[in-house]
Amino acid sequence: MSYARIGKGRNLPEQLEDDLRKAIVSGELAEGQALPTEPDLAQRYGVSRSVVRDAVRLLIAKGLVEIRRGKGTFVRAARGEAFAEALLLALARNGGTALDIEEFYGLLLPGIAALSAERASSGDRDRMLLRAEAYLEAFGREALDPSSDGPGLLRALFEAFMNEILKACDNKLVELVGGLLVRMRSFRDLAPEEGAREGGVAAIIELEERAIMGLARAVAGGKASEARAFAVRLCELRPSLRARLASTPAGDMPKLSFDMLAPIVQDS
Amino acid sequence: MSYARIGKGRNLPEQLEDDLRKAIVSGELAEGQALPTEPDLAQRYGVSRSVVRDAVRLLIAKGLVEIRRGKGTFVRAARGEAFAEALLLALARNGGTALDIEEFYGLLLPGIAALSAERASSGDRDRMLLRAEAYLEAFGREALDPSSDGPGLLRALFEAFMNEILKACDNKLVELVGGLLVRMRSFRDLAPEEGAREGGVAAIIELEERAIMGLARAVAGGKASEARAFAVRLCELRPSLRARLASTPAGDMPKLSFDMLAPIVQDS
Repeated sequence: MSYARIGKGRNLPEQLEDDLRKAIVSGELAEGQALPTEPDLAQRYGVSRSVVRDAVRLLIAKGLVEIRRGKGTFVRAARGEAFAEALLLALARNGGTALDIEEFYGLLLPGIAALSAERASSGDRDRMLLRAEAYLEAFGREALDPSSDGPGLLRALFEAFMNEILKACDNKLVELVGGLLVRMRSFRDLAPEEGAREGGVAAIIELEERAIMGLARAVAGGKASEARAFAVRLCELRPSLRARLASTPAGDMPKLSFDMLAPIVQDS
Repeated sequence: MSYARIGKGRNLPEQLEDDLRKAIVSGELAEGQALPTEPDLAQRYGVSRSVVRDAVRLLIAKGLVEIRRGKGTFVRAARGEAFAEALLLALARNGGTALDIEEFYGLLLPGIAALSAERASSGDRDRMLLRAEAYLEAFGREALDPSSDGPGLLRALFEAFMNEILKACDNKLVELVGGLLVRMRSFRDLAPEEGAREGGVAAIIELEERAIMGLARAVAGGKASEARAFAVRLCELRPSLRARLASTPAGDMPKLSFDMLAPIVQDS
């Protein structure tokens, strides 16, 4: 922090926020560290306490700090939540739908899968396969008995698998935007009572296994073009799914059924 | 707006902000429309004016409204600036570099080019070719005489060309994130005095023309796989460029020279 006296011209809270923000982004104020107290900041910058309060409020709105009751104001971990909220907001205001999100994911995933195959370390590869197996096990249980674990666990396991692929790319923007897309898709919040055609469940489980294990093995095996091809197929949308997503505003939860989600896999 | 009395439990400004935000996102409060006055909002929601002021400050921080001096508070156009700022902030805090941005762009552009080729209307196609020509004309001028227009114009013309490709995809998230990436790359801020090897300028101009016109013609001609291939080649990075980008923190301006930027085009 510069602790330079501010004043004149521009909005005072914004000037103060600017200085504190730079200190946070540069790491001068590290994650988990406490901000100086309100009176302390007011004195050092030569501003009123209400200016300090307003500046801190701007930092809170940007997701950079948080108030812990009775303890003070602390620098938050950099997880990109503020960015996620801002993006969803912008998308909703532009009339975006769940289909925009899903299509975007489909544009990005093939390239990510290929890059991940090229760059994954052996540790990445092991974790990727383990996560794929854990997800598929839960998928099978949930498909056969929708009440067993609930969709929350299934979604968390799917996200954990995808996040391994994202991490292996070794690209910060892939982690941030990709991680957000995986969360935004909110795809695995199934309403199985609505769909799951009689007799079709086993076939859907098999399709999902072929698609996910195919992707996981190609990436873990370092086969970039095969990983790309699996990702392309994994992102193909059934017409019923496309229609449902197009009618769901971005940020809302589409009501999906297992048969809408079954991967379109003819050959493997 | 619900105008429901708020109070108890959660933070009052956040509750009010939540209600106003929903009204803006849904379009109930349209772009350019004035918010009700401070006393009016305070009365309708049954809160103090300082609560209203804090709620409005949160809306400002999210980029949803702006104060026009002496006129009141107005709903801003939905351009996604808040999202852009939040993303750059998150990226900078995670130690991201200009290389992360450029690589991400390279992952996304091929898919975008292919989708754009499939979906472009004839109006889109005409504009795309015109913008490509305008950009290349300026590129030639700037490469031969770096002082002629300055890099600002060149960058604006490149963005205009890319934005036509993004728009033709007919996907809101592609427009938002793609548009941001194009701006973030800040690629065309050249420092030609630093590079531009003697005798190499004409060759660089020719390479740029082949790469950009190749992409523009493939997209405008509806040739998806050709458009994808041109985009892949356009995103290949010379080692000198990769090194420079990797050492530039995200959000900073990398110092580039024309020869770093020359597209790697062997065959066309």
